[in-house]
Amino acid sequence: MIPTLEWTDKGVNFLDQTKLPLEETYVLATTYQDVATVIRDMIVRGAPAIGVSAGMGMALAVQKSPATTVDALLKDVDEAAAVLAATRPTAVNLFWGIERIRTLVRKLAASQPADRSDADKLKAITDEVIAEANRMYDEDIAACKTMGQFGADLLPKKGTVLTHCNAGALATCGYGSALGVIRAAVERGHVIDVLADETRPFLQGARLTAWELMKDNIPTSVLCDNMSGALMRQGRIQAVIVGADRIAANGDVANKIGTYTVAVLAKEHGIPFYVAAPWATVDMATKHGDDIPIEQRNAYEVTHSNGKQMTPDGVGIENPAFDVTPAKYVTGIITERGVLYPPYDDTMLAMQAEVNAATA
Amino acid sequence: MIPTLEWTDKGVNFLDQTKLPLEETYVLATTYQDVATVIRDMIVRGAPAIGVSAGMGMALAVQKSPATTVDALLKDVDEAAAVLAATRPTAVNLFWGIERIRTLVRKLAASQPADRSDADKLKAITDEVIAEANRMYDEDIAACKTMGQFGADLLPKKGTVLTHCNAGALATCGYGSALGVIRAAVERGHVIDVLADETRPFLQGARLTAWELMKDNIPTSVLCDNMSGALMRQGRIQAVIVGADRIAANGDVANKIGTYTVAVLAKEHGIPFYVAAPWATVDMATKHGDDIPIEQRNAYEVTHSNGKQMTPDGVGIENPAFDVTPAKYVTGIITERGVLYPPYDDTMLAMQAEVNAATA
Repeated sequence: MIPTLEWTDKGVNFLDQTKLPLEETYVLATTYQDVATVIRDMIVRGAPAIGVSAGMGMALAVQKSPATTVDALLKDVDEAAAVLAATRPTAVNLFWGIERIRTLVRKLAASQPADRSDADKLKAITDEVIAEANRMYDEDIAACKTMGQFGADLLPKKGTVLTHCNAGALATCGYGSALGVIRAAVERGHVIDVLADETRPFLQGARLTAWELMKDNIPTSVLCDNMSGALMRQGRIQAVIVGADRIAANGDVANKIGTYTVAVLAKEHGIPFYVAAPWATVDMATKHGDDIPIEQRNAYEVTHSNGKQMTPDGVGIENPAFDVTPAKYVTGIITERGVLYPPYDDTMLAMQAEVNAATA
Repeated sequence: MIPTLEWTDKGVNFLDQTKLPLEETYVLATTYQDVATVIRDMIVRGAPAIGVSAGMGMALAVQKSPATTVDALLKDVDEAAAVLAATRPTAVNLFWGIERIRTLVRKLAASQPADRSDADKLKAITDEVIAEANRMYDEDIAACKTMGQFGADLLPKKGTVLTHCNAGALATCGYGSALGVIRAAVERGHVIDVLADETRPFLQGARLTAWELMKDNIPTSVLCDNMSGALMRQGRIQAVIVGADRIAANGDVANKIGTYTVAVLAKEHGIPFYVAAPWATVDMATKHGDDIPIEQRNAYEVTHSNGKQMTPDGVGIENPAFDVTPAKYVTGIITERGVLYPPYDDTMLAMQAEVNAATA
């Protein structure tokens, strides 16, 4: 089991993904501010992992709050929510994780027995919030496993699957979304070679996807992001599977920059293009992919490589962290609630109705 | 004028392109073996520059040959040809440059007056070969300028042009093929922003294209290879222009890995996709792009960045240096003899007939 992140008595312990694959070191976040830094600096990344990290950050905010009354705690929680929400704009899971804990705190605050002492109320809320953050963690792993079961047979019995960025154990609390589907297929006996786009500029594919698949003895090769088209033309890729950072109500998918290019190439070559993501990645309030905010990251990620400048002084730099793949390129969306197919406008609405009914 | 390579009294002086953009250092090749190393290690690269480098390498072989008879010289020249031909397989200009000098040496050898001394014969041949190598150099620059004149008005009056790899002054003896067309358009008053794909793994775009366009004050931004699709979808790119390493008789174009992906994206977005290359890049003997040999380079270029390992031990690596873009994606091919349009089977044959007539 890859220890992406974990709640401990001392705080939230994060595997430092900026140091992989050569070093396995950990960063202990003891405050919500620490968690915000860990998310912003991409020590943890991947939409599902960011969502649970945000939930755990909120739990730390409750646990470490100096508040002596429930009202003061609610203020501290709102402040923590604002700080965590300002870290990265694209993955909707961040906001989902924050709101899940904030809503719970409000509900618990409103339902405390009047005759309880402030201290006892705060302890009861804290205990419940920590338990909830850990439930989010468990649910995320369970969702990955379920996605794997739904998606496994969509992958070839024998063939090569291309993935972009890292939608693996390292992007979730374990097992992975897109890589979870690959793992489930391999567990069912499919013979799969993985091609991992290196994924510039942060190299999540070269560093993270390759690392975790090698650990599982799944044959993996790394290629530069500009090579998959040529391999598709040679018939060397049978399926594409990626994760998602946010899925709009019409099925448009925001995911790591370069995903759209892979999707266009897959369509040109008649190769199926699957997205695997927990339902928490779906944002029914966003009607169209072009309404999803796209994070622009620091030019330094592109200009420098291991501390050395690679571009001339003064040149312009583009560094969008994500792009939007319109629904028409997406063969299917694998969630823990089932696989969605076009027309996504309809199938997503139907799935949302199911979710509402289940949680009503 | 950017001094990509130059014949000097001491040997052939090469600007070391592996050190750009931070260092402008030079490598002096005093033997044909040195030139072979310079080509293999990509101190010089770019099909037209490789072609002239090979010609100058052959001239060095003649100049430095210890042969005391014309027959011995012919043997040395064949050996040099074999060594130079083994450096890089894809750019047809390499073989063109070698053969142009080898053919000339044979012709000169056969036409030496019988009453000349061996020493005088060898000196006459040497003088003529060095002059020919320098003519190749001058012709290459002239061809670039002419391509610029033919191609300039194909680029937008005002807009953003995407290029991949470096088909600039650094890939030729000066001015550039694709970047020469951009330069000519700018000289005619077009207002052009250039987007330069960084071009993994060797970063020719980030390091070389950006460097030489910044020197000419042409506004340039670098983007990772996985970003152009997203920018095209946003309507931010009006034209694509690239160079070529070999063009088959049917108009299929071998060029830097990733060119095919850019061509597919351009087609998907209705953006014109131009290729600029001197006629020496056309290989009428190769009927179809899939018959062009594609160089596979060392895994180290992908696994390491500035000396630091980025991928886990044991992972597979793909590193094809080139890909083939089928003719159907190519809007036009700009040469110094005019612009070719589809159907390329016919237009290339007609152009070859013109060339044959001109040189008959």
